[in-house]
Amino acid sequence: MVMRVDGDRLWARLMAMAEIGPGVAGGSNRQALSDEDAAGRALLLSWAAAAGCTHHFDEIGNLFITRTGAVVDAPSVLVGSHLDTQPTGGRFDGVYGVLGGFEVIETLNDLGIVTEAPIELVVWTNEEGSRFQHSMMGSAVWAGSLGLEAARDLVDVDGVSVGEELDRLGWNGERATSPADHDAAFELHIEQGPILEAAGTEVGVVTDVQGLRWYTIELFGYPAHAGPTPMNVRRDPARALGEIINGVYELAAASGPDARATFAMFESEPTSPNTVPELIRARLDMRHPDEATLDALNEEVHRIVERSSTRHDVGHRITIDNHSPPVQFAEQCVSAVERGARSLGLSSQRIVSGAGHDACYVAGHVPTAMIFIPCDDGLSHNEAENISEEQAEAGASVLLHAVLEAARSIRRL
Amino acid sequence: MVMRVDGDRLWARLMAMAEIGPGVAGGSNRQALSDEDAAGRALLLSWAAAAGCTHHFDEIGNLFITRTGAVVDAPSVLVGSHLDTQPTGGRFDGVYGVLGGFEVIETLNDLGIVTEAPIELVVWTNEEGSRFQHSMMGSAVWAGSLGLEAARDLVDVDGVSVGEELDRLGWNGERATSPADHDAAFELHIEQGPILEAAGTEVGVVTDVQGLRWYTIELFGYPAHAGPTPMNVRRDPARALGEIINGVYELAAASGPDARATFAMFESEPTSPNTVPELIRARLDMRHPDEATLDALNEEVHRIVERSSTRHDVGHRITIDNHSPPVQFAEQCVSAVERGARSLGLSSQRIVSGAGHDACYVAGHVPTAMIFIPCDDGLSHNEAENISEEQAEAGASVLLHAVLEAARSIRRL
Repeated sequence: MVMRVDGDRLWARLMAMAEIGPGVAGGSNRQALSDEDAAGRALLLSWAAAAGCTHHFDEIGNLFITRTGAVVDAPSVLVGSHLDTQPTGGRFDGVYGVLGGFEVIETLNDLGIVTEAPIELVVWTNEEGSRFQHSMMGSAVWAGSLGLEAARDLVDVDGVSVGEELDRLGWNGERATSPADHDAAFELHIEQGPILEAAGTEVGVVTDVQGLRWYTIELFGYPAHAGPTPMNVRRDPARALGEIINGVYELAAASGPDARATFAMFESEPTSPNTVPELIRARLDMRHPDEATLDALNEEVHRIVERSSTRHDVGHRITIDNHSPPVQFAEQCVSAVERGARSLGLSSQRIVSGAGHDACYVAGHVPTAMIFIPCDDGLSHNEAENISEEQAEAGASVLLHAVLEAARSIRRL
Repeated sequence: MVMRVDGDRLWARLMAMAEIGPGVAGGSNRQALSDEDAAGRALLLSWAAAAGCTHHFDEIGNLFITRTGAVVDAPSVLVGSHLDTQPTGGRFDGVYGVLGGFEVIETLNDLGIVTEAPIELVVWTNEEGSRFQHSMMGSAVWAGSLGLEAARDLVDVDGVSVGEELDRLGWNGERATSPADHDAAFELHIEQGPILEAAGTEVGVVTDVQGLRWYTIELFGYPAHAGPTPMNVRRDPARALGEIINGVYELAAASGPDARATFAMFESEPTSPNTVPELIRARLDMRHPDEATLDALNEEVHRIVERSSTRHDVGHRITIDNHSPPVQFAEQCVSAVERGARSLGLSSQRIVSGAGHDACYVAGHVPTAMIFIPCDDGLSHNEAENISEEQAEAGASVLLHAVLEAARSIRRL
């Protein structure tokens, strides 16, 4: 009989975690470095202690939970994802990868299997980047792509910094972050898109991750009274904004189905309904799996903003808050996932991830792959995000097989 | 020699008032019912007491400062405007009308002139409507157009109500508000537009005020992850927003130079840069001097919002926060202003006000007119708002003549 994880136990743990920081519509609100985030990690640590695991934090609060291997100090196989959620997040985004990874450890315990390499379950800090606006923050610091101090200096809307919260929660570990201690990495995740569901495929074997750029677009107008000021003498940033939004969406539509554009976080000053705004700010998220195309889109975004700002005589500033190039995963890990699905008799297909994941940073240093399962209507970043217990069990069982192959192969090298 | 006010004294008082609640760029930030607003009124009351005036508050905090007349209990001539400012307001919007009115009283004192009717200087509460979002709030309650309790229940962004602030400041007067005690009213104001300056005219004789409608436009999307979610399955309110902004500005442009459209106060939820927004909210200010045209614009705004919302499968809600019909001032008062300018040898022209004023509510109950003076570049609702001492003196001298005519004529009736 082919080895599988315990789906009931996994599901029960997913539901228990979803009650920590409950959302307002059935999802979760467990934002990074909040009391709810801490409560979620405490729950996981209580399970991990019962499972005989040790744990430590690195300086950016990434939590590593270790199941020892037979070979002392051997590089580990890294599994895991994140427990923090969007403000109106679902119950599975990230959480499923953490608890699916923990379920692999528990299944190995149940079956008395000793692996040659240790297995490390990681909970990355602040993957979502919504409270502190750098997504995949913990893995970026771990990978050396983001400085520790720069990360600690990030502040939320109330002015509270990452560093203050790390110190408050006692997550400011002493061990230097380092990618050198791992030999392979796997991140299990819901797809967050509609491709697998539409194709009726049980497992997505992720080969690539789309690149992304995050922009803050600021438009500077000249405040003037909404009544007496003739339209033709105004310097009104809203006029540029309308054109920019339409222009960027037209650009995305003209760049094929892989191009993605999302405007979010609109704000303006002053708080006056009858004054031409002095400032309008919006965020733009642009994605494409091809870096050259992403570069071309970037140039075009700048052109659109400049053209409309000039036309309406308003100032503009474009800030790139995040630039993640597309990522290609390691073929040996990708094929290990494929072999796992095949041995379990599950249908699979190779797909590109539209979302960024901590695995993107890991992949720069450790052979890495991701496993996707379908989610209802492809919906994510929404409290209605959903999967079935059977889907959860299938993905975690594929992870189990991929981990077993990688954790054993170390001694064979 | 033709009687004139003391321009030096008026200017010194304007500059002294501008220092109460200073702005960040040379203007003023003295928002309604704030400590700064209270300090501004206290300064005026210190001057008024020295000038031998009495004062009282009505229930909505409108401040009436009285110079007695020769006829006991005769209906008064009402002058004044407001002392509250926009968050980034200028030094003259409203303030000039109050201190210009007070300068008339002081000039009459200096010259020992007794009028038959009392002269009442009014400081209306919350004209700007920026902190508590009902513009011309105090005069609207006074006129019976807005209920006292509805006004007291208005809250600012921190949840503090008008009622709480009135009670805190002791501005909750006992005397019932009533328009019946006045026989004529004049409001002196800066133009807040470029017409007089462009024409080189010294005094604007205001005949009409544009009607306005304030809208809150809310667009409801379906949160989804900015990466994996294909563009063609999104319900993205930003796509509707871009079209609505452009559509409304095109509508305004097609409706002639008297039509005004201003978008302001953009906001969105959730605070996540990589989630399709669940909600985008913006305010729209539409104006036109002709009520039938304003009605037609209103219907077209609804059509534009509905069309774009339907096209992008997002929900929408349009709330009308304010509907002020166009106002025509009383010919006897308008011509009194004209006569005042003529006797002073000042150039004048009849114009329509693009901005709403407390005089609009007064005009529904008392024969009313307004006096405009030019302001630099027509600029207002901006800290750079500016006038010269000569312009200030000219407008207040016109007010002096109009008031003298009205305050004397009561006995003659």
